[in-house]
Amino acid sequence: MFKKETYQNRRSRLREEVGHGLLLFSGNNECGMNYADNTYHFRQDSSFLYFFGIDRPGLSAVIDIDEDTETIFGDELTIDDIVWTGTLPTIREKSEQVGICRVAPANALAGCIANALAGGRAVHYLPPYRGEHRELLRELLGIHPAEQEARASVAFIRAVVNQRVYKSQEEIEQIEEAVNISAEMHLAAIRSVRPGMKESEIAAIVTATALRDGGELAFPVIATTNGQTLHNHYHGNVCREGQLFLLDAGAENAMHYAGDLSSTFPVGHRFTTPQREIYDIALRAHRAATDALRPGIPFREIHFIAAAAIVNGMKALGIMRGETDEAVQAGAHALFFPCGTGHMMGLDVHDMENLGETWVGYDGEPKSTLFGLKSLRLARPLEPGFVFTIEPGIYFIPELIDRWRAEKRFAEYICYDKIAPYMHVGGVRNEEDYLVTTNGVRRLGKYIPTSIDEVEALRV
Amino acid sequence: MFKKETYQNRRSRLREEVGHGLLLFSGNNECGMNYADNTYHFRQDSSFLYFFGIDRPGLSAVIDIDEDTETIFGDELTIDDIVWTGTLPTIREKSEQVGICRVAPANALAGCIANALAGGRAVHYLPPYRGEHRELLRELLGIHPAEQEARASVAFIRAVVNQRVYKSQEEIEQIEEAVNISAEMHLAAIRSVRPGMKESEIAAIVTATALRDGGELAFPVIATTNGQTLHNHYHGNVCREGQLFLLDAGAENAMHYAGDLSSTFPVGHRFTTPQREIYDIALRAHRAATDALRPGIPFREIHFIAAAAIVNGMKALGIMRGETDEAVQAGAHALFFPCGTGHMMGLDVHDMENLGETWVGYDGEPKSTLFGLKSLRLARPLEPGFVFTIEPGIYFIPELIDRWRAEKRFAEYICYDKIAPYMHVGGVRNEEDYLVTTNGVRRLGKYIPTSIDEVEALRV
Repeated sequence: MFKKETYQNRRSRLREEVGHGLLLFSGNNECGMNYADNTYHFRQDSSFLYFFGIDRPGLSAVIDIDEDTETIFGDELTIDDIVWTGTLPTIREKSEQVGICRVAPANALAGCIANALAGGRAVHYLPPYRGEHRELLRELLGIHPAEQEARASVAFIRAVVNQRVYKSQEEIEQIEEAVNISAEMHLAAIRSVRPGMKESEIAAIVTATALRDGGELAFPVIATTNGQTLHNHYHGNVCREGQLFLLDAGAENAMHYAGDLSSTFPVGHRFTTPQREIYDIALRAHRAATDALRPGIPFREIHFIAAAAIVNGMKALGIMRGETDEAVQAGAHALFFPCGTGHMMGLDVHDMENLGETWVGYDGEPKSTLFGLKSLRLARPLEPGFVFTIEPGIYFIPELIDRWRAEKRFAEYICYDKIAPYMHVGGVRNEEDYLVTTNGVRRLGKYIPTSIDEVEALRV
Repeated sequence: MFKKETYQNRRSRLREEVGHGLLLFSGNNECGMNYADNTYHFRQDSSFLYFFGIDRPGLSAVIDIDEDTETIFGDELTIDDIVWTGTLPTIREKSEQVGICRVAPANALAGCIANALAGGRAVHYLPPYRGEHRELLRELLGIHPAEQEARASVAFIRAVVNQRVYKSQEEIEQIEEAVNISAEMHLAAIRSVRPGMKESEIAAIVTATALRDGGELAFPVIATTNGQTLHNHYHGNVCREGQLFLLDAGAENAMHYAGDLSSTFPVGHRFTTPQREIYDIALRAHRAATDALRPGIPFREIHFIAAAAIVNGMKALGIMRGETDEAVQAGAHALFFPCGTGHMMGLDVHDMENLGETWVGYDGEPKSTLFGLKSLRLARPLEPGFVFTIEPGIYFIPELIDRWRAEKRFAEYICYDKIAPYMHVGGVRNEEDYLVTTNGVRRLGKYIPTSIDEVEALRV
């Protein structure tokens, strides 16, 4: 936990910004994998953590702005629980550590909300993302799950985003710790992979590195020789000489801040020539993006800079042609780069994704519906305190290439007959995490090798 | 997957046993950790796996016994999905592999159930354990979550238990594979622990061993120097010379069968004298239990044999006194052994726990409410095909001892003033997995060292 004042100040700003009504926070519960008591590792809701700091299942909280009260709802352990869990600090003790003195049993929440509704007062809630949240909102507010997201409080969402999006110094220290663990995960993988190993062996090494000091994975590991599949969690293949290995993995540290890095490296000692050519383009795009970072620049421009670098590189290889900026504006590059250049990062690896990317990455502006650009999670002008990833990549996705080729889509920009020699490259991506400062940007955490020479040096 | 006929035969027996109506199976969905798209690893519902074999989120199934149809409900991937997930076999292809030719979109389920209800037909369902199940049952059947468990179909539950409880040869091979991976997890831990290491480092090694070949953890790892806390998932302590380390960990293999083993070993090279004395009693209790195993014996008797061995050992140390059988029947041993001697194991580590232990471990007979005995998950007579754990243990739980001492509870059996020299022993447990055969029992999987000499030999 941070110090008490951190949480008090956050809640105080939140109350001021929303202005009136009740703010309802649903903490997360345990989630059974295959029966109720065999649970996944517990992960508290990030907004609950941000404003209340208590990392325990079964809690809710209400901030009553009008009556100036803050209450945590939850049930203390019984002696029967203690036999199984050991002694833990009470909810009351933990609440006092974050500056809250009102603690009530879990079943008192319904009455609290019913009273407010009976008085005609507004009950603000954030969009749900688990069955347990939807059940609670239906019980408390009588709102059908299908309508809950649409009726979430925009005032509440905006007030939460307006704080969480600007990382404080104490948060940046936490994020940097998570990025450093993430870097160790990547270094362990880059040093370990050998022809004949299973992808799952690398995923195991990466996972163990995240867990070793009490952390967790910030998101499911992508550890694959099929990097063209963007979210590939199948780790059953055997790694072969001549393949590239793509690792996208990050740690969540003990305070639940995320790191998120990607690296791409040969299964054998060296990149093949086509791999080297594509890797070099992806790396140039990465560096073009990071070189352009500065306070005030819209991240959409950073994305276009990365996309243009990819188009230019593909043109040099004869895979694309035509005017670069036109190709990017039309979305032709999205055949090879169908996703975005980066996303906000914090307590969530895609920070606050459940609050809506429109608010987090676009400041309310609607997102594009164009293939490729619609997957850009961050577009707004960069401000000091923003923390985000940079991760342009190049992917040869057979299903997508076949479909576009059959439709002759963007044939003025894409030389479909020149793609074949590069199909086996699969996918290439590097990813780093950046902080915007008052007068520039700073890469967070330990550097992991990105140049071909640096990577090959680790593969000896 | 097993061969098609396995699933067809299972469903055929199920239809016959329930006799009429519709059987509704809710498969599991992805569960967001901190937002919808950042999910825990997917785990299919075990009964869905058992009868339909398809290991994919977003599916439901209905067996209409009266109309003799079997339908799987789910939505096929779009090209947008394939960019992120890669090409996968279609739901239709997977359904055909398990002998089902009717596949319908997910949104057709509601109409199917509504028609059956309108016709006055019974819709049988199993008890829910996730928010998503409860939401679905409420939508389809109009049953409030608070009433869903009570209104689950006993006929359906019993028919499922009556098949899943008897493991076939092909299932036993899967379980044995999971137990063998679990044994490697324990051997890696026993060889690795050193004074100064964090518990989380051992948990990481154990987890990596489970993941290495594409498996998962069957349940959250217990890796602790505080073994007296029965379900201790806090791994933040540094291991110190003179402590015992208790590991309870098991793998889930690729087919989702579980292994479950426990071991207890010194952080240093050797057990201390009090540790040796308690470990020896726990091991004698373990061996008394396994020696008594045979087809037909009620597992409750096995539990009493283990408990009696613990009481006899504690009497020899002067910690308990009086007539052993009386002490066990009264429940006095539960101060040191507050849980059960074992539980069924299969696709779930506590097999079918969500269907109700009364049906799985007691064949419908009610469970005891006595402290200790109420935590015995298995009591019924053993039959060929049963697979279960043997895991008696001895625990020095400060909160429980303080409370009982203050109440002078069972003072005729417990010598409270003799406990102090053993408090630092914490908790001791060994655990193995057994199969009942037609004429005896067989320990499953690779042996892990249990005698003091064997364990110390690995700690050199």
